[in-house]
Amino acid sequence: MSVSPFDHPFLSGLIGDEEVTQWFSVENDIAAMLSFESALAEAEAAENIIEKAAADTIKMACGTFSPDIAALKVAVAQDGVVVPELIRQLRETIPPGHRASLHVGATSQDVIDTSLMIRLKPVLRRLDTGLSDILGKLDHLDKAFGKNGLMGHTRMQAAIMITVHDRIEAWRGPLFRHHQGLNALKHNFPVMQFGGAAGTLDKLGDKGPAVRKRLAALLGLQDVPQWQNQRDIMIEFAGFLSQISGSLGKIGQDIAILAQGADEISLSGGGQSSAMPHKQNPVLAELLVSLARFNATQISGMHHALIHEQERSGAAWTLEWMILPSMVTATVTAVRTALKLLDSIKEFGLGVTTKT
Amino acid sequence: MSVSPFDHPFLSGLIGDEEVTQWFSVENDIAAMLSFESALAEAEAAENIIEKAAADTIKMACGTFSPDIAALKVAVAQDGVVVPELIRQLRETIPPGHRASLHVGATSQDVIDTSLMIRLKPVLRRLDTGLSDILGKLDHLDKAFGKNGLMGHTRMQAAIMITVHDRIEAWRGPLFRHHQGLNALKHNFPVMQFGGAAGTLDKLGDKGPAVRKRLAALLGLQDVPQWQNQRDIMIEFAGFLSQISGSLGKIGQDIAILAQGADEISLSGGGQSSAMPHKQNPVLAELLVSLARFNATQISGMHHALIHEQERSGAAWTLEWMILPSMVTATVTAVRTALKLLDSIKEFGLGVTTKT
Amino acid sequence: MSVSPFDHPFLSGLIGDEEVTQWFSVENDIAAMLSFESALAEAEAAENIIEKAAADTIKMACGTFSPDIAALKVAVAQDGVVVPELIRQLRETIPPGHRASLHVGATSQDVIDTSLMIRLKPVLRRLDTGLSDILGKLDHLDKAFGKNGLMGHTRMQAAIMITVHDRIEAWRGPLFRHHQGLNALKHNFPVMQFGGAAGTLDKLGDKGPAVRKRLAALLGLQDVPQWQNQRDIMIEFAGFLSQISGSLGKIGQDIAILAQGADEISLSGGGQSSAMPHKQNPVLAELLVSLARFNATQISGMHHALIHEQERSGAAWTLEWMILPSMVTATVTAVRTALKLLDSIKEFGLGVTTKT
Amino acid sequence: MSVSPFDHPFLSGLIGDEEVTQWFSVENDIAAMLSFESALAEAEAAENIIEKAAADTIKMACGTFSPDIAALKVAVAQDGVVVPELIRQLRETIPPGHRASLHVGATSQDVIDTSLMIRLKPVLRRLDTGLSDILGKLDHLDKAFGKNGLMGHTRMQAAIMITVHDRIEAWRGPLFRHHQGLNALKHNFPVMQFGGAAGTLDKLGDKGPAVRKRLAALLGLQDVPQWQNQRDIMIEFAGFLSQISGSLGKIGQDIAILAQGADEISLSGGGQSSAMPHKQNPVLAELLVSLARFNATQISGMHHALIHEQERSGAAWTLEWMILPSMVTATVTAVRTALKLLDSIKEFGLGVTTKT
Repeated sequence: MSVSPFDHPFLSGLIGDEEVTQWFSVENDIAAMLSFESALAEAEAAENIIEKAAADTIKMACGTFSPDIAALKVAVAQDGVVVPELIRQLRETIPPGHRASLHVGATSQDVIDTSLMIRLKPVLRRLDTGLSDILGKLDHLDKAFGKNGLMGHTRMQAAIMITVHDRIEAWRGPLFRHHQGLNALKHNFPVMQFGGAAGTLDKLGDKGPAVRKRLAALLGLQDVPQWQNQRDIMIEFAGFLSQISGSLGKIGQDIAILAQGADEISLSGGGQSSAMPHKQNPVLAELLVSLARFNATQISGMHHALIHEQERSGAAWTLEWMILPSMVTATVTAVRTALKLLDSIKEFGLGVTTKT
Repeated sequence: MSVSPFDHPFLSGLIGDEEVTQWFSVENDIAAMLSFESALAEAEAAENIIEKAAADTIKMACGTFSPDIAALKVAVAQDGVVVPELIRQLRETIPPGHRASLHVGATSQDVIDTSLMIRLKPVLRRLDTGLSDILGKLDHLDKAFGKNGLMGHTRMQAAIMITVHDRIEAWRGPLFRHHQGLNALKHNFPVMQFGGAAGTLDKLGDKGPAVRKRLAALLGLQDVPQWQNQRDIMIEFAGFLSQISGSLGKIGQDIAILAQGADEISLSGGGQSSAMPHKQNPVLAELLVSLARFNATQISGMHHALIHEQERSGAAWTLEWMILPSMVTATVTAVRTALKLLDSIKEFGLGVTTKT
Repeated sequence: MSVSPFDHPFLSGLIGDEEVTQWFSVENDIAAMLSFESALAEAEAAENIIEKAAADTIKMACGTFSPDIAALKVAVAQDGVVVPELIRQLRETIPPGHRASLHVGATSQDVIDTSLMIRLKPVLRRLDTGLSDILGKLDHLDKAFGKNGLMGHTRMQAAIMITVHDRIEAWRGPLFRHHQGLNALKHNFPVMQFGGAAGTLDKLGDKGPAVRKRLAALLGLQDVPQWQNQRDIMIEFAGFLSQISGSLGKIGQDIAILAQGADEISLSGGGQSSAMPHKQNPVLAELLVSLARFNATQISGMHHALIHEQERSGAAWTLEWMILPSMVTATVTAVRTALKLLDSIKEFGLGVTTKT
Repeated sequence: MSVSPFDHPFLSGLIGDEEVTQWFSVENDIAAMLSFESALAEAEAAENIIEKAAADTIKMACGTFSPDIAALKVAVAQDGVVVPELIRQLRETIPPGHRASLHVGATSQDVIDTSLMIRLKPVLRRLDTGLSDILGKLDHLDKAFGKNGLMGHTRMQAAIMITVHDRIEAWRGPLFRHHQGLNALKHNFPVMQFGGAAGTLDKLGDKGPAVRKRLAALLGLQDVPQWQNQRDIMIEFAGFLSQISGSLGKIGQDIAILAQGADEISLSGGGQSSAMPHKQNPVLAELLVSLARFNATQISGMHHALIHEQERSGAAWTLEWMILPSMVTATVTAVRTALKLLDSIKEFGLGVTTKT
């Protein structure tokens, strides 16, 4: 399907990323949801809430289960979430005696938010590597061209000569801080969501926190109290994404303007025009601007989702589904694109440093 | 693929629409782009710019051509647009003597914007029918329940008794205006885009306007001067979409609040909860709120795209690609959802009119 | 006060407009609210709802009343709206026998929304004149420089030569449509708001529509049914504002880029730099971009306000108050700025037409 | 003036804050800009860039200077920034022999960004105190009512009984994290901006960093390399503001819904209606929602400002001016309003704990 360019058979070559696409594939989502149910059974058996034999059976079922996607689609249109039907189908694959031990004390939001968090783990790794690589490339460009002169521009007018190093520093500063921020974020994120019907783990008595702690450990997530109606955790991550794409957008804008001049930068591999074969369009530079403005638009919707009424808001939560995966994809695309763009810089600056 | 819920194998059952998905399929996009090239050849032959035989050959080629999608994906990552590679592939299927007659005087943006406009025609029809149907359902609800009492609420507090008719009128007013607006819009929209390399149809001498007029007629679009860097035409349409989803979002919000009370409205077929089988969640009502807030977020990005620098901005244009198809899908989903929600109203109001 | 640059003692010289500031002054707001109460009394007397003598007394009181602003400020913090306290103060200036005839059947929202609409009348006139003047200046520039050559740019790269006329046409098209749209809008806007406690004019029996019709005529507004929870009327106007500033933002962006090059445009009177006396900053061109992005940001909040729950939402309505006056001011500022910028163009284009 | 409610003579009683208004007053801005110039002279004298006598004269002049605001307003319309004219006026008050020692090596953005940062110091303190107070009030409410029952709601439907404690925990969690975040932020914020004409402190030779370090110490700001085109520092702070108002907006939304029910919460001092004297409107609760949606709208514009082209962008920077002070004011207003709202809770919950 192809409403979004991120999902589009050919546009995703430009505006998308194959790895991200896999993380957000339906197969990966289902696998993550099943890993939640499997780990939940294991944790609850360890806390003597369900029988060990039931847990083993459930884990085995989760390992082999393949849902009827068409039926999930019909059900989600009715229920607003996929989990009731997924659990119904999964339960049918479990021997009747153990069926009641599945999904004990959990609710749809636990499964869906946790599935997302599981899939954000490789996103963090990818951003970490990507930012490292970009910082490395900037170092490399600085070593190669840093001493060259560059006409500094303020308010879109030639000001005084600076060096390529000065410009690169302005690019590096925010990305360095984002990389630091990412490493700080990793201590608190991604997090486990487990709260049950209304966030109180009411079905588990006083064993709720212990089960949650085991679950988090099994799934490799941070253990935190339920946050189903405390969306600052998700929104802070989204702000981080838009900061990254915004800082890369500034690089894109700068390079697009430099490329217009033709004497201060030389890029390999620009885009073809169907009407003017002589042109070399700075496609990647422009794309960085587009992605930055896309995320700058989306971040607003995420902040609106902070107004998450009562114990759980269908309206605010569903809004996140429509926005966050696209923001992740835009950000990873921006990182990938920036790497390629920086790699394409063949010459940068005026050759002789004339810093005044 | 499934980054966007609109493209998602099971979420699209809730947040998506099968018909819209087809309009935005890659097959439909390619078909529309080929219809542009085919009509262009026909129009240019009629104006003696290319030979009639060349036009016939091109039209035949366009009728049977099926592109190598993988190669398109590689090329779009390089060129930022699909058209150069699509034309290259298509040209190979044409006898050498006529190849130069393909795509004469056109540029990528002509093909891509026009392809979108062709595919917006069924969108307008669907919105027209959908708004008519919703207005019809509101009439029906008014006839059935209009005289019933309803506690009027201002600032989230019970105020004075009104009637169900009064509430329905508040829902109907904006939708009636949107329906009128849609019918007015149809006189100017969708429109032809044809401008060539820099919008001046430079390759066609003084025959540019005549070719464009023929093209528009062949493609069933309004004939207007090139607007490649005048995006108000696209943004006004987007504003219209968000107005529709916003007005439906108000209905959703009202019904979600009414459903909380349980004595003033009765809905059939609410959503199941995986934790609380007794609940009937007003999933469709909440979804209307989500879709309204989604479009209210996106409309901002479209307005930023008005700042479309020079003759053609890659950055601003690509931003539209990331936003408009999702807005269309959200709006059609909202119309579909509102119909289903209004249909599910079994009882409305307090039975005895006690308007004070 | 000076939180907003539009209200700032010195920043408003750049980002603001003296005429708009007057329209939104507290004096003008109070005058408009009093004109509502005065006209309401007159209309209700004409429909025999209150006595003619009472109406005359109220009209006289409204003509001379000057409220205690400090007390209004205290009260608005409590009531969320100024009207209860304003009416209380006003009532004290009326002889006891006629006091009950004041504000009969009206509610706060009637007074506040109508006051805004009264003050939008000069806004429409100013935009009408401003767009006319800009279109006139573009004609003038076209006559003076239209035949000059200009390097056309697509995707931030030199493409082919066009003429200054071609560029001006791309600027004129959207503004011409906005001017047409404004004239169409004037048939339906600004509108009367009169609905009473819950929009049903419950206190006026079957005379509600007749009173409203008289009120609208007295106040020079379009007579329409109450729209207090149908905000599409307000949001459509806001969309219009952002379209205007967006289309002017494209002109600003184009001129800022042209001014960077220094050989295709010459502007008089650019801004000084405190560090580089030789520079001539294209301040007005940049400001047009800022104002466009400001409104493109704000329009999103207005669309969220479409989700106006029940008979009247304090939350959604108050959000409009925080956004719409700033959008109006930004738009008028953009119109004023564009006029000044276009006026400053001394040379445009390359002198000899070399359109290819 | 009164375009913005934050600056409005009576609306600011509701939507505004007297302390914030003072921080953003023109007097405070000028005082902060003069403190920059004064500290700059002192720092440059200490580094032997200007004479000690000149520095003393400049400091004395800064201590007594009062600018001609009308002339500043005229100049800012021309220059886009106030600094050139401010320096010109200030310089006239300095004996001719020392005039050249004023503003050495600095540029407008240094003065304006630093002035803002100076004025953000009390903002941080106010937010710190405000969040502490809110957390304290939540503790107090928890102690008083925490064991009471409350009907938990998910997807706008009654779910299972929870306790008031559970709901308060959901309010406290994000605010606790924001308070922690604020304390972390204080280590890096507010920061000094000092870069000179193009960010390279070109006029100061190798003494630039030493001057900047002294300046930061004198002004009580963090010393960091110039960030004039690295706006992540400002945007991260803005995100923090919107997170706070968003988390308070959730509390407002919850209380507005609770107040609708009338049996689970009792508030003192609701707002009056001009039409229905019996009503008690939850004005403060609604206002929290409005302020949250306002900031959620504005944050988008701040993220767009990350695309800050070249050494200094007039367009992106001016956009921040139109947005950030309003976001600060909205956030402080939200904190003030939340305190008042929580204080007004007289009863909360159902009296007998019936947690299931």
